[in-house]
Amino acid sequence: MKETDISSIPYINSLSGIKEPFRDGCRAMQKDIICLKERSAVHNKVLPSIEKAVEMCGLKDGMTISFHHHFRNGDYVLNMVMETIARMGIKDLTVAASSLAEIHDPLVGHIKSGVVKRIETSGMRSKLADAISRGLMDIPVTFRSHGGRAYAIESGQLKIDVAFLGAPSCDPYGNANGYSRDHDTGISCGSMGYAKLDALYADKVVIITDNIVPYPNAPFGIPESQVDYIVKVDAIGDPQGIMSGATRYTKNPKELLIAETTTEVIAASGYFYDGFSFQLGTGGASLATARFLREKMLEEKIKASFVLGGITGQVVKLHEEGLVKKLLDVQSFDLIAAESLKNNRFHQQIDASYYASPGNEGSAVNQLDVVVLSALEIDTDFNVNVLTGSDGVIRGAIGGHCDTAAGAGMAIVVAPLMRGRIPTIVKRLNTIVTPGKTIDVVVTDQGIAVNPQRPELYERLTKAGLHVRRIEELQESAERLAGCPEPVRYTDKVVGVVTYRDGSVIDLIYQIAE
Amino acid sequence: MKETDISSIPYINSLSGIKEPFRDGCRAMQKDIICLKERSAVHNKVLPSIEKAVEMCGLKDGMTISFHHHFRNGDYVLNMVMETIARMGIKDLTVAASSLAEIHDPLVGHIKSGVVKRIETSGMRSKLADAISRGLMDIPVTFRSHGGRAYAIESGQLKIDVAFLGAPSCDPYGNANGYSRDHDTGISCGSMGYAKLDALYADKVVIITDNIVPYPNAPFGIPESQVDYIVKVDAIGDPQGIMSGATRYTKNPKELLIAETTTEVIAASGYFYDGFSFQLGTGGASLATARFLREKMLEEKIKASFVLGGITGQVVKLHEEGLVKKLLDVQSFDLIAAESLKNNRFHQQIDASYYASPGNEGSAVNQLDVVVLSALEIDTDFNVNVLTGSDGVIRGAIGGHCDTAAGAGMAIVVAPLMRGRIPTIVKRLNTIVTPGKTIDVVVTDQGIAVNPQRPELYERLTKAGLHVRRIEELQESAERLAGCPEPVRYTDKVVGVVTYRDGSVIDLIYQIAE
Repeated sequence: MKETDISSIPYINSLSGIKEPFRDGCRAMQKDIICLKERSAVHNKVLPSIEKAVEMCGLKDGMTISFHHHFRNGDYVLNMVMETIARMGIKDLTVAASSLAEIHDPLVGHIKSGVVKRIETSGMRSKLADAISRGLMDIPVTFRSHGGRAYAIESGQLKIDVAFLGAPSCDPYGNANGYSRDHDTGISCGSMGYAKLDALYADKVVIITDNIVPYPNAPFGIPESQVDYIVKVDAIGDPQGIMSGATRYTKNPKELLIAETTTEVIAASGYFYDGFSFQLGTGGASLATARFLREKMLEEKIKASFVLGGITGQVVKLHEEGLVKKLLDVQSFDLIAAESLKNNRFHQQIDASYYASPGNEGSAVNQLDVVVLSALEIDTDFNVNVLTGSDGVIRGAIGGHCDTAAGAGMAIVVAPLMRGRIPTIVKRLNTIVTPGKTIDVVVTDQGIAVNPQRPELYERLTKAGLHVRRIEELQESAERLAGCPEPVRYTDKVVGVVTYRDGSVIDLIYQIAE
Repeated sequence: MKETDISSIPYINSLSGIKEPFRDGCRAMQKDIICLKERSAVHNKVLPSIEKAVEMCGLKDGMTISFHHHFRNGDYVLNMVMETIARMGIKDLTVAASSLAEIHDPLVGHIKSGVVKRIETSGMRSKLADAISRGLMDIPVTFRSHGGRAYAIESGQLKIDVAFLGAPSCDPYGNANGYSRDHDTGISCGSMGYAKLDALYADKVVIITDNIVPYPNAPFGIPESQVDYIVKVDAIGDPQGIMSGATRYTKNPKELLIAETTTEVIAASGYFYDGFSFQLGTGGASLATARFLREKMLEEKIKASFVLGGITGQVVKLHEEGLVKKLLDVQSFDLIAAESLKNNRFHQQIDASYYASPGNEGSAVNQLDVVVLSALEIDTDFNVNVLTGSDGVIRGAIGGHCDTAAGAGMAIVVAPLMRGRIPTIVKRLNTIVTPGKTIDVVVTDQGIAVNPQRPELYERLTKAGLHVRRIEELQESAERLAGCPEPVRYTDKVVGVVTYRDGSVIDLIYQIAE
């Protein structure tokens, strides 16, 4: 063979490695007769402990770590990882969780001890939220919607150094999923939609699982090519907290009334046609809408092209009846939904970016005809608060609220006019999460209000015989019944920054004055 | 509400957009009553022409564009796009195709006119390959394996500015697939494995389709979140060239003999156990092995855990019979395979990185027990050439050859001892593609040879009564029958750089001396 100076060939420098051609072999591995099963047991990504994984990932003071919330209030993973990290003496971390639940209250200790310096999340509840509302942290919590978090990750605004992702099944190379089609053991969480994006973008990805299954764990939600390490633990969560058997059917007459009215609004709106699409948010009235909508769809022989978002057993029922063609599932809310994802060919797992990122023209929220959303407070400009209670304390989550409201053809917010003695429709709310310009209709147990910027919608609803009131009337009714609530008193300290889906600041949360 | 100087809050500068909290609305879209179907027709990613897409992507002189080869010799996309680009006067492009076929011969003209300056590909054939072998290009072609290309893309060595990806189905927002579960029209190519990685990493992604289906095109191979633009054309390819109904069943007695012997080798090797895994490369003998292996599996009651790579109807048959549990499909070789991907729950679409990237510990090739591969030439050090003919002219493709050989427990290369009057086993081959250290067994119609670095394999095969010869004997037999071939004469000009999977240079291809 000729001797050629490779460096003289154009573009050859763009090739790495050996700079001379070689004819007699290469960096081949030495082979023994060792079969797939044995190889999977020896050469794999499984590490003996979370500590080892933290070490191998090179986690250092000041880095950002991420978690998903598909295990909801049954999650053991975040606490296990944080305890390990605390024991290892690593400090000043940013915890970027897709959301936080009551079970994550031990974070309070990690904040006090300096392990956690900053938090990004969709929401929080319980003692953690209470402590933060009272000024626990030096740096305010950044609240992001699910779509906003996706956009922050994609755009590099939120850089994740290490993602610790719990998974109900994983093979020795990292093919992970919220279920396993052939090796399910106790726990199943269905879609891994929020975790998928972390896996794609984080520098290092660790899967924490209690169920290592044989290779290949196909289908997978997270492919092995995005996973660095795997740790097997005894338990990743409490099945009761992760999943109820089925989402609860509300029997609350107020909620049922609201759900029924909501269905009438949808039917009269112009968005109810064969092939329409919808999403139902969490909350009793919103979820109950599925039942009334089903009847209406059967009655009028209308089928939906898809349902989006958090999927429930009630929506699965519509799908299996042929009333909904496809399910786009970013989060499975109950066991029936998780089972359906496993078994139904048109029930598709989607990631957070696909679901709701504002950076993507086509993100699925933009394809919604109708979304039904809950609220803690709604003001007379239709602005919605889903993050702080009437006492100003953090007690909720943004979720996909502002994403779906912006995307959907019609965003309906449902809420009782009063909760106990507390009015829901107010003149001025504590925290803006979703801007009123993106909300079209408010449905309460005391009447409907239509955003004045949607006159044609007002027209349609009144023509259909629905009693539409001005939102000011609803607010005044509530005030007449409950009196004017004392405004919450705050200090000057900012404890939370509420971002809109594009990362801009839409509101600030202040420390409660005691 | 309080007036707070947001810039004084730590980390607030990491948030983009408006720097003041605002309470009265935001950048919400103005809404009309416009339903999903109408919205999909108006606000979407569909552009009127390829020219418009090229323009919108900002394609400039010197950039890198990519294509996939799932349409094989039926592909219209590459030629359509290149013609448009040529007409627009853009020059000096790098064409990074996952592979090139005879139908892409028009590239010769684009090279001559300066539109194309450089090519990266797995292989090429026909007039284009012939012209390049004779010195058409100033800059040598970079040949990469499928795993090597994945690694180059992931590592940033191969930066794709614009990917033009043909797809048999796509909705108005870019959910694309090689089939559609509810809206298939004429063309189906099954897996989009090679295209998936381009979609993930390219700066701009354009889907070219002849079949725009209603949103959401779920399941999808490429998610809308990775797609920038869509162009609908009359035809993306010739169904005949994209897919035969079924991969041909060889009747060539030499090939059948080799396939039968190969099955005996597998059965005796120690890699044939319940739960083993395998891949069959292209080529008559390799594909025919499926038939004999099936009988052996039934006979010995052995089932495979998975089959990897290019999937054929013959392998689908094994899957549907329950002999193979899962199919990991990077490329569907025939209509039966494409249909199976659509219908079988354990037939999974995987991308090129998952399949074969050397940058990923767990890539599926590393989980193979057995791979059966073809060859143009094999030398007495077991090195393999699949790229250039005995005349030194380029006429093949690396494919996953060196990836699977390196990964599999046992790599078997199958070839007739002679092709016509041309010996296949030679002292010195024209081009090294796969290093001999990664090849374990050679099976010809005239006998078997085992790599001396695998004495225990030699032991097992001879114990099983197989007639194992030294590879030098095979070479000498061939030489006795055919004489010693005249060495190919080359000039000093390098026309091709053959890279190994990690991007290092393993061989150079020189211009044929005329």
